[in-house]
Amino acid sequence: MTFLDMLRTAERQNGSMLCVGLDPEPTKFPDRIKGDSNKIYDFCAAIVDATADLVNSFKPQIAYFAAHRAEGQLERLMEHMRRVAPHVPIILDAKRGDIGSTAEQYAIEAFERYGADAVTLSPFMGWDSVAPYLKYHGKGAFLLCRTSNPGGDDLQNQRLASVEGQPLLYEHVARLAQGPWNLIGQLGLVVGATYPKEIERMR
Amino acid sequence: MTFLDMLRTAERQNGSMLCVGLDPEPTKFPDRIKGDSNKIYDFCAAIVDATADLVNSFKPQIAYFAAHRAEGQLERLMEHMRRVAPHVPIILDAKRGDIGSTAEQYAIEAFERYGADAVTLSPFMGWDSVAPYLKYHGKGAFLLCRTSNPGGDDLQNQRLASVEGQPLLYEHVARLAQGPWNLIGQLGLVVGATYPKEIERMR
Repeated sequence: MTFLDMLRTAERQNGSMLCVGLDPEPTKFPDRIKGDSNKIYDFCAAIVDATADLVNSFKPQIAYFAAHRAEGQLERLMEHMRRVAPHVPIILDAKRGDIGSTAEQYAIEAFERYGADAVTLSPFMGWDSVAPYLKYHGKGAFLLCRTSNPGGDDLQNQRLASVEGQPLLYEHVARLAQGPWNLIGQLGLVVGATYPKEIERMR
Repeated sequence: MTFLDMLRTAERQNGSMLCVGLDPEPTKFPDRIKGDSNKIYDFCAAIVDATADLVNSFKPQIAYFAAHRAEGQLERLMEHMRRVAPHVPIILDAKRGDIGSTAEQYAIEAFERYGADAVTLSPFMGWDSVAPYLKYHGKGAFLLCRTSNPGGDDLQNQRLASVEGQPLLYEHVARLAQGPWNLIGQLGLVVGATYPKEIERMR
């Protein structure tokens, strides 16, 4: 099953369009385990158990594991999600963006080491920084496009004089992701829901 | 000592402006250890030993460690570089780029877990995705600006209609890094040396 098949199946089976992000920050854990970075797996696994029939996907953010030397806990969490919710696809939130040879390594990390079904990526370095992920047929890749953080405007909202129709940079990214970059339909976009008009336009 | 102090000291002491990148790909190792991902540390440590008096910095690329479940080997390598070449700064090549709360986690990873002196970052998500790294006084941060890979043009080389003087996107990044983003002189830029005129212009 491809990422898209899994996503559609989970959406139907769970009647949900909700993705649950897993950004475990130990200082915000319940009192009983507050600050304990050895409990990252436990904290996330409990969320997975409670939501397995309510979501269309899970999205662990790798930075929270990397900060706490907790890659092993992320590996265990991936296995746990497969066991508890085999029909729910997993998006590894990593926002990688690097030249081809390095992108190949990050693709190994996401798809082979962790066994994710999809990954988030940055488009800043262009086509060859995205292509290595698309060699994994059936896997998904979400490109940063229009992010809703305060600095999202700094680059993404600039208007391009050098591209036909003078799109904003994020519209340019959306076009690339819809056209020349999207070889076999694996690409998606990260678009913040803060600005409904932009979402509408992107759709 | 700040990153810049270390860089200048190493440049003077070693009479060098050479940064040695450490992108260990086990399939390209010498025959004796070819394909052995347990030898990543050994391979890199030998390069460090052979170049410690010839360089101004070391730059390990974290993707090659992450792909092979080798974070522990990267930790050992960081310690080894400190021991063998305490005067040589270490740039962690990670090209992170994420919202503030996630950037804080990646900053912990780079500066606290691995003890790097500087890190490479992507500017695509804007100011608040860069700021958390700059809270570590004395540490350096290199923003992707003009990369020399084939896809480098796709976004970076687009001309902006909406910024005064209609700069190219990478020139806009350079201005931000020189001006409003560079609070206390910690920011540097990643500019490929493939196009000498662009380097000259960036300088």
